Amino acid sequence: MFYIGIDLGGTHIAAGVTDSAGRILARDSTPTRAERPYQAVIADMAACALSALDQSGHSLEEVAALGVGIPGIAQNDRGVVIFCTNLGWEQVPLREELQRYIDKPVFIDNDATLAGLAESMAGVSRGASSSVFLTLGTGVGGGIIFDGKPWTGAHGVASELGHLTLALDGVPCTCGKDGCLERYCSATALIRLAKEALAERPDSQMLRLAGSPEGIDGKLVIDCARAGDPAALAAFERYTRYLALAINTIVSFIDPQMIVLGGGISQAGAFLLDAVRAKIPQYLMFKTMPFGRVELAVLGNSAGIIGAAMLGKVLKEGESL
Amino acid sequence: MFYIGIDLGGTHIAAGVTDSAGRILARDSTPTRAERPYQAVIADMAACALSALDQSGHSLEEVAALGVGIPGIAQNDRGVVIFCTNLGWEQVPLREELQRYIDKPVFIDNDATLAGLAESMAGVSRGASSSVFLTLGTGVGGGIIFDGKPWTGAHGVASELGHLTLALDGVPCTCGKDGCLERYCSATALIRLAKEALAERPDSQMLRLAGSPEGIDGKLVIDCARAGDPAALAAFERYTRYLALAINTIVSFIDPQMIVLGGGISQAGAFLLDAVRAKIPQYLMFKTMPFGRVELAVLGNSAGIIGAAMLGKVLKEGESL
Repeated sequence: MFYIGIDLGGTHIAAGVTDSAGRILARDSTPTRAERPYQAVIADMAACALSALDQSGHSLEEVAALGVGIPGIAQNDRGVVIFCTNLGWEQVPLREELQRYIDKPVFIDNDATLAGLAESMAGVSRGASSSVFLTLGTGVGGGIIFDGKPWTGAHGVASELGHLTLALDGVPCTCGKDGCLERYCSATALIRLAKEALAERPDSQMLRLAGSPEGIDGKLVIDCARAGDPAALAAFERYTRYLALAINTIVSFIDPQMIVLGGGISQAGAFLLDAVRAKIPQYLMFKTMPFGRVELAVLGNSAGIIGAAMLGKVLKEGESL
Repeated sequence: MFYIGIDLGGTHIAAGVTDSAGRILARDSTPTRAERPYQAVIADMAACALSALDQSGHSLEEVAALGVGIPGIAQNDRGVVIFCTNLGWEQVPLREELQRYIDKPVFIDNDATLAGLAESMAGVSRGASSSVFLTLGTGVGGGIIFDGKPWTGAHGVASELGHLTLALDGVPCTCGKDGCLERYCSATALIRLAKEALAERPDSQMLRLAGSPEGIDGKLVIDCARAGDPAALAAFERYTRYLALAINTIVSFIDPQMIVLGGGISQAGAFLLDAVRAKIPQYLMFKTMPFGRVELAVLGNSAGIIGAAMLGKVLKEGESL
């Protein structure tokens, strides 16, 4: 059997067809145009999925299930998106609406959770008994995978790792709380730290390349840190320390077998991984404390489609047990 | 069948025999005298357990398994206590040593985890699909129960909720990190907050009753807050705010069906629970966000024995599957 995965983003809808190992056979994409009524967006999601299916050369009869990743919170049992800031969605009956076009079992989960599922089915954490995935992007998303299945919690609101309090009364977060983890571990945070570093070290290559502080992005900070620019390095040191503390909190909470770093910042590769790994030991509760391996995600942008398709697989199979 | 539970504490060893529903049939206790070699402590644990068994009127043949709760970290698959600060234990082969006296299957876990298991088998969280237990004592311990089984993580170091970073660069913790959750949510923290409040409000009933700041304990702060003493109330308000943020972090991480508050501070009862519950909504990611019920533990000191005995039950049954 085959599986359809739809990755619903704020700007683009991506859909693909995978085999049961999570290999993508065909894919398509279309702009989200989130300002429209949700019915129109969902009609395009279905059309995009059917176009990918057509390209794959397979028929709907061969499709076992359809999974959808959303940049928000879903209640899978009800098939409803309960909250999705970027799209302005609240209590949207996504399953019911999608099934008007594609009459297959539909499963829904958070996009970071599904990226974690993708890595655990077809990526770096394949075979791990438990893993936690962190997307380091504009915000910070999280995914928890136990025994090959996403853990979404008793009310569908689990694994919002970007909104753990890391700094009591710290930097205000868009969610309304202060000091959330994503204010210290996202690309947005790295850029803020770079600007703070420039206040002390204005004679910086980073600033010259950016033209102005507003021109700084995450990639530039990483590139300049790698090149040894003192301001960029100072920001990168603070950033990787915060990330090491966040990983330490994940270890102390659920002690997963593996922790996977994804999202834009993870493209810094070994430069990031080495710096974070080097800082973790100083935060352990005792020197010989065992803890999970920290690795980089390997599936990149495909993780969204793969994870959504694999959600259909693991939940459909769970239903048949 | 019956089960033996041993609760190993820094000052006392308590042991009991329970039926399969976790009802204690008989119990005994003896001082730990932790300064002795571990072999002597373990010999006393066995003697205490056998004495309780004798009092219960049952024989060793009727005992299915033995569970032990320790104030530290164990690796259950190896039957080894890997770290236990209060006792000065590191890599102690507890199962092997106990089985010299009692030839039964032996299972080991952290005491806070087992108190959580006790509540989920025979207490307030009975029947919950997932629960998180927080002991608010000298430190803060945690227990995670999924589907009736303790979650100990991939390396046995999970649910150390006292050592999540809650305050970046905050109050130094005994573990070597700064700003750990237990520096803000333990009885020790409440006492510190009370002393800080006295600096601004020295004319306090709390100070008069204590004689000196050194005489303040958690119960006095709670009692004085309840009586309306401004300094005690200020400390209690800060404390319950930190606890609400800690609960929010638990919700955002794993979204359990229930969160249970135990330990000395939980004896403040509805006065604590009402104050914490009132503060949680302001930290939710969105207004209508569903989250788990917050409740007080009901088993008190018996939770240690019950949880240890029930660990034997759930893991023994798991083995037989």
